[in-house]
Amino acid sequence: MSNFQVLLVAGTHGNEINAPWVFDQWEQNPDLLDRHGLQVIPVIGNPIALEKCQRYLQRDLNRSFTPEFLNSSKFTDLEISRAKYLFELFGPKGKSSSQIVIDFHSTTSCMGTSLVIYGRRPADLALASLIQNRIGLPVYLYEGDSSQKGFLVEAWPCGFVVEIGPVPQGTLNSRIIKQTFLTLKICLEEISKSITGKSCFPENLIVHRHLKSIDFPRDFSGKPIAFIHGDLEGRDWKTITQESPLFEDLKGEIVRLSDYSCQDEVVPVFVNEAAYTEKNIAMSLTKREVWTFDENWKDAFYELIS
Amino acid sequence: MSNFQVLLVAGTHGNEINAPWVFDQWEQNPDLLDRHGLQVIPVIGNPIALEKCQRYLQRDLNRSFTPEFLNSSKFTDLEISRAKYLFELFGPKGKSSSQIVIDFHSTTSCMGTSLVIYGRRPADLALASLIQNRIGLPVYLYEGDSSQKGFLVEAWPCGFVVEIGPVPQGTLNSRIIKQTFLTLKICLEEISKSITGKSCFPENLIVHRHLKSIDFPRDFSGKPIAFIHGDLEGRDWKTITQESPLFEDLKGEIVRLSDYSCQDEVVPVFVNEAAYTEKNIAMSLTKREVWTFDENWKDAFYELIS
Repeated sequence: MSNFQVLLVAGTHGNEINAPWVFDQWEQNPDLLDRHGLQVIPVIGNPIALEKCQRYLQRDLNRSFTPEFLNSSKFTDLEISRAKYLFELFGPKGKSSSQIVIDFHSTTSCMGTSLVIYGRRPADLALASLIQNRIGLPVYLYEGDSSQKGFLVEAWPCGFVVEIGPVPQGTLNSRIIKQTFLTLKICLEEISKSITGKSCFPENLIVHRHLKSIDFPRDFSGKPIAFIHGDLEGRDWKTITQESPLFEDLKGEIVRLSDYSCQDEVVPVFVNEAAYTEKNIAMSLTKREVWTFDENWKDAFYELIS
Repeated sequence: MSNFQVLLVAGTHGNEINAPWVFDQWEQNPDLLDRHGLQVIPVIGNPIALEKCQRYLQRDLNRSFTPEFLNSSKFTDLEISRAKYLFELFGPKGKSSSQIVIDFHSTTSCMGTSLVIYGRRPADLALASLIQNRIGLPVYLYEGDSSQKGFLVEAWPCGFVVEIGPVPQGTLNSRIIKQTFLTLKICLEEISKSITGKSCFPENLIVHRHLKSIDFPRDFSGKPIAFIHGDLEGRDWKTITQESPLFEDLKGEIVRLSDYSCQDEVVPVFVNEAAYTEKNIAMSLTKREVWTFDENWKDAFYELIS
């Protein structure tokens, strides 16, 4: 057995309680889920925030994995300290080093079960291809937006975020629990298969490439003056066009995609995620692209897991 | 014009942001909604909690209107102070006294638009009858459960809570905003009609009478070991029977209504309300009853508004 290890994270945000609950049940009932001989470390990202059912205490843990924070000892915020702890213990050079990390989240947006990858790292693309090929999950490729950085998975050589919704913060939900459990199971199966050389890579990877994020229309004091249009609410992943309504208000005024400088056809994601209001994000717009599977992705992935 | 006044409250819980948003828009655009000559006071219940998008800071404001808290000066909690302030200013003996209060909430439960009344005060039953007769909203009659007391509307001679869901805490939602706005409009219209003697009372009032609240199954440490069954999630107001599943876990074990001492047929409400987990409430069970409209209700109501 090599030193290859998979780090599984839940509760990076303390009010996303479904994945932590699944981890807890798994710990108490190890037979629930076969590890397929993999070395697997399940860990709660932000246990103090989870205890309080808050997204975070001092700052967003999932924006705290920047090299600046990880390589300095001058920051004392709880979440930066936690990021350093997780990275130093489970990071690629850690005592219990992990090469792959999967970070399980939930969202108030109607994202179904989806994967988020950060940038175009070949090993990420290979792993996402395996999962998408197996159960057809949509992939959101987040890149090139400097306003949001320091995501947990970026600090590991390979990994992605699993986002499942819609679910209100702080509630256990049957569908979200089962989808989390199923996705966890599939991830372990696919990683296991790749180690024994039984992986089945697809010809294509469909990605939804991040274009830009859009804020709510706001007044001079910063208050939202409109809300997500009823036709868009709950319709993440559906293509919209220039005339599509994005926001409306009680006077019946409508803001359309054409009011923004954007491509003719885009796919909105993270529509009305509760936690993003503070980040001035009402939704993100993406472009759906079909990428030919690249053998280099596979090579990078195999190099990592061997 | 008499001194009759209607107090409208939103944001009693600071993370239920839709009704406060509607109030804010109405303030900025008074033409949005006709007051029909009524003296109306819209107020934010817990503005500091709303600012922070938290349910409350120190204790639940909507459990802080007990006579003990209202008649004492020894409590210094923010929410008790706020309760005293609201009661002393807008209560029946206040400088700006209001006879009716309507308290607008939202919930993560699939409650649709519904009314909650506390106990069997005749004037409440009359007003609820008017609203139900106009737009058919279900009425939850909360009574006889000493574990939850000190609700805001109980401190006024007449009033009810409007509960609208499902919506995650902290998100503006098109449907919830429009339902809040419509219910507000209907309430003002019906109260206005009652003042000019044009009310149309129904022959019956359908109530869902509180029987008991049920907690999640928990382990010795207090952690939930099961979640709301998928067949029940999102199905508030639907009659269930002894064999109906209430909870399930990842091992496939099911807890049914028959596992509780209860009536044969009950109607669950507030299924999986996020804020009730801390109150050890996974749902409340009610009995649907059709009550004959009582002329005494009308008399009590007219006495109040005259």
